[in-house]
Amino acid sequence: MEVIVPFSTDRPKSRLSDALSPDERAGFARAMLDDVLDAVSAAGGEPRVLATDPVDVDRPVTVDDRPLTDAVNAALDARLGHDDETGPDEAPEPVAVVMADLALATPAALGRLFAAGREADVAVVPGRGGGTNAFVASHPDFRVDYHGASYLDHREIAAEIGAAFAAVDSQRLGTDVDEPVDLAEVLIHGEGRSAAWLREAGFALDASEGRVTVVRE
Amino acid sequence: MEVIVPFSTDRPKSRLSDALSPDERAGFARAMLDDVLDAVSAAGGEPRVLATDPVDVDRPVTVDDRPLTDAVNAALDARLGHDDETGPDEAPEPVAVVMADLALATPAALGRLFAAGREADVAVVPGRGGGTNAFVASHPDFRVDYHGASYLDHREIAAEIGAAFAAVDSQRLGTDVDEPVDLAEVLIHGEGRSAAWLREAGFALDASEGRVTVVRE
Repeated sequence: MEVIVPFSTDRPKSRLSDALSPDERAGFARAMLDDVLDAVSAAGGEPRVLATDPVDVDRPVTVDDRPLTDAVNAALDARLGHDDETGPDEAPEPVAVVMADLALATPAALGRLFAAGREADVAVVPGRGGGTNAFVASHPDFRVDYHGASYLDHREIAAEIGAAFAAVDSQRLGTDVDEPVDLAEVLIHGEGRSAAWLREAGFALDASEGRVTVVRE
Repeated sequence: MEVIVPFSTDRPKSRLSDALSPDERAGFARAMLDDVLDAVSAAGGEPRVLATDPVDVDRPVTVDDRPLTDAVNAALDARLGHDDETGPDEAPEPVAVVMADLALATPAALGRLFAAGREADVAVVPGRGGGTNAFVASHPDFRVDYHGASYLDHREIAAEIGAAFAAVDSQRLGTDVDEPVDLAEVLIHGEGRSAAWLREAGFALDASEGRVTVVRE
């Protein structure tokens, strides 16, 4: 299954600016991207980076500097849209879109998403706050709108076009690393480059206040 | 499988005090408990409430007013501990402990936990921040310590006693409803009494600021 991984090179991870410098945010974002790409490959997917600028990565890259929703929809148009070769009765191959900041992604979690996406026309992993962290679609009319509570919007879009919808229940894929509190999740659960990057940068877990947070040495 | 559901009647859900009055917190905590008990039953589990005071609920109740860790360990002692009838080579029946504030619990998510707990000696669902939201144990020596990042502690305890450990990846069971931001998750994903309770109390989703939060009418 082709797996599109959108990656923004423009001011990445700005909500981590209290914890990391701009250069550090770029390095950490890249570590997360590499973790996601490795997990996708290990799960049997064929990753393709969809980047706002050229990225030096040992995978296929498509550059599209439009906003996320437009760029993903262009990719869906190219893969799911009706064309001369695909008749209306012929279902397109499913395509996945997995965000580049899912630092806890594992082959097992992605495997569950891919399996759900082979059963349903649209399978979505919701993130905290109702975002859409990853999905698989094979319905020719499915398009995205990442604004706001996009998980609910995507469920509604699926219903409107008559697509069978499945939600995939995964904390690992449901955790997009956006804010300082999310760094604790990477240190607790991450086993890849992102967790190593944080440890090398001096971050450690701190449970002294009851809730678990991170401190930097 | 017996499923113990710890429930505190003493100042429940104090971290929701900015959003709900004491009476409301008690009502909402009870709605969540009922959702959890229903989901456990629908998943084939046999729920038992482990409460700090008597609770009027149509299920078996054990009252134990000790702190959570002590009360759960007493329950584990009674079920997993060696006794005259169980020889050292006879594995105890697995027992589950599922927190009462997992308002998004579904039979499917609990079914995955129960299945993992039949394979491994200890299967744990981590919560956000490294808590232990639910587990199944069948190893006679497994005991809990809910302080701090208990997920990591429980993984270490399992390693120390030579118990096969599994982590269960579920956003639904990984979401314990403690803070106002968690109420949005209930409105987005909840289909039971807890979501209905919040809607009747006037809560609604608000995506106007980008991140999805709740507002009260």
